[in-house]
Amino acid sequence: SDKVKIFTLNSNKSLAKEIVDVLGCELGKSSVSKFSDGEIQINIEESVRGCEVYLVQSTSQPGNEHILELLIMIDALKRASAKSINVVIPYYGYARQDRKARSREPITSKLIANLLETAGANRVLTVDLHAAQIQGFFDMPVDQLLGVPVLSTYFEEKGLEDIVVVAPDSGGVVRARKMASRLNVPIAFIDKRRPRPNVAEIMNLIGDVKGKTAIIIDDLIDTSGTVALAAQALTDHGAKEVYACCTHPVLSGPAIERIQNSPIKELVVTNTIELPEEKKIDKVTVLSLAPLIADAINRIHNEITVSTLFE
Amino acid sequence: SDKVKIFTLNSNKSLAKEIVDVLGCELGKSSVSKFSDGEIQINIEESVRGCEVYLVQSTSQPGNEHILELLIMIDALKRASAKSINVVIPYYGYARQDRKARSREPITSKLIANLLETAGANRVLTVDLHAAQIQGFFDMPVDQLLGVPVLSTYFEEKGLEDIVVVAPDSGGVVRARKMASRLNVPIAFIDKRRPRPNVAEIMNLIGDVKGKTAIIIDDLIDTSGTVALAAQALTDHGAKEVYACCTHPVLSGPAIERIQNSPIKELVVTNTIELPEEKKIDKVTVLSLAPLIADAINRIHNEITVSTLFE
Ligand SMILES: Nc1ncnc2c1ncn2[C@@H]1O[C@H](COP(=O)(O)O)[C@@H](O)[C@H]1O
Ligand SMILES: Nc1ncnc2c1ncn2[C@@H]1O[C@H](COP(=O)(O)O)[C@@H](O)[C@H]1O
Repeated sequence: SDKVKIFTLNSNKSLAKEIVDVLGCELGKSSVSKFSDGEIQINIEESVRGCEVYLVQSTSQPGNEHILELLIMIDALKRASAKSINVVIPYYGYARQDRKARSREPITSKLIANLLETAGANRVLTVDLHAAQIQGFFDMPVDQLLGVPVLSTYFEEKGLEDIVVVAPDSGGVVRARKMASRLNVPIAFIDKRRPRPNVAEIMNLIGDVKGKTAIIIDDLIDTSGTVALAAQALTDHGAKEVYACCTHPVLSGPAIERIQNSPIKELVVTNTIELPEEKKIDKVTVLSLAPLIADAINRIHNEITVSTLFE
Repeated sequence: SDKVKIFTLNSNKSLAKEIVDVLGCELGKSSVSKFSDGEIQINIEESVRGCEVYLVQSTSQPGNEHILELLIMIDALKRASAKSINVVIPYYGYARQDRKARSREPITSKLIANLLETAGANRVLTVDLHAAQIQGFFDMPVDQLLGVPVLSTYFEEKGLEDIVVVAPDSGGVVRARKMASRLNVPIAFIDKRRPRPNVAEIMNLIGDVKGKTAIIIDDLIDTSGTVALAAQALTDHGAKEVYACCTHPVLSGPAIERIQNSPIKELVVTNTIELPEEKKIDKVTVLSLAPLIADAINRIHNEITVSTLFE
């Protein structure tokens, strides 16, 4: 079959390196630099003619830079006669702008899907889309991998006892259910409610956590506001200890400080977003999705539909 | 006819304000801000349903931010049922990546044209494209305004005598010709040549500048390397004084320092790119294109084809 080449840009270099190590190949030679005025300059330093290319890039922060790098690289690959351009977007940014919550709002995650298509992407491989509907924004095959199995296995191997899996809001109950099933433990969730306008939200805990080891799960943790409040509520309700986990460690603004000051014992995340040094604190454990992604690339290349295999 | 509304984003706020002042209307209410993680949040704060919208934004630096702001705003306007979305891009960035100079290069200025179309732009109004061919990258009407008339008028009104207009390289001769015709003066140009590989370029002056007032003209000045060398060559060849002008003051990296240390007496630019305070040095004069752009908007709205009127 056709030659496969794997390239990376600036967002996830270490993950891309791990993926090719698992696959037993080398990264395609390319460089991304900037002209004096800040415009992105991309050089592909080996032929891609007729190749099936996999391009690894999350649209994590700085998101606008990473999006443009990705689009420009796709353009260059297309013009260099790549046979197919498969974009591996471990973290798909702008996913929270996936509907018009108010009038005259953009739907940026649909826009980005269209832009990727216009640039010339043929297929997307991603992990834990913020909303499953985003798959439908693309008119090309989208394979979605899930973080839950890797996160669950980690906690399983830790040998924790008397676990309860907690969704930090009602939207996260389905995800928590998946993890709880894998671990064969009960679930609980936090029901946030604003009794009247301009009155502080109250955090209502549904389920039993007393004396238990609580594991909060979410798809992404951004400012850590929700997860820190949830951890406090669980402690207040008598949880023995509180862990938290998510697939995408966005961790912006006060996130790290809040985690540090919260009752959370350990925050377990994956490497869909590369953490800068200052965010690699002792409390944070990073699990690699390289084996999962490498396996998916293998399956796509052998034309087995991935989306169903990984649900 | 339909209601016209003019919006702006972050790149050219003061130019947009001047344009609506000339037209005698107000800027449409909108805001561009950032979520905690850096993702762009756009709010359009008044109805645009059925309106002809003009959206002013250069894709100047930070270019990737400005491009995404523009695309997201177009998406929001389209979803808010604007009748037409006319993008006013005074400076069209990435214009120097307009062909494959080497193998496997992207053609980013074509890519950006496609992205604007995908987002939902219906028409483009721009000033001095780096290459005229870029108009053909769009499958929608593109009106191109020229900086030469405004720049020429400025020098005319200055009452300089014995002028020669100078193109800093062979690619700029056509533009210099236009200015020289308006001023009714001769032209000269600098013929850069590398005698052998790895040997410094030599600057050959074609034309007579001795005792004359030289005006160097270019479409954009980026690092000022070319224009500073040209000014030195002109001085060395006996020019009495040297002015320089361009439409787009990119002025990145060492640009301001080079202008400061060059024999250039005054650098005249337009406001297609908003200069930050530290670049507004005494030697730099900024001319406004607001009247020209306002006039073009009027003409487009009244369905007179602009492209021919402004050549
Ligand atoms: N980058 C972002 N950071 C914080 N909030 C966002 C971001 N993008 C979108 N939103 C808002 O988050 C809400 C949707 O979040 P969710 O309910 O978790 O899907 C919407 O009200 C969006 O306006
Ligand atoms: N932002 C930029 N800054 C400097 N050079 C660039 C930039 N974008 C493209 N180029 C290069 O400029 C050359 C084209 O410039 P020109 O001959 O003036 O059209 C090509 O070799 C490009 O690789």
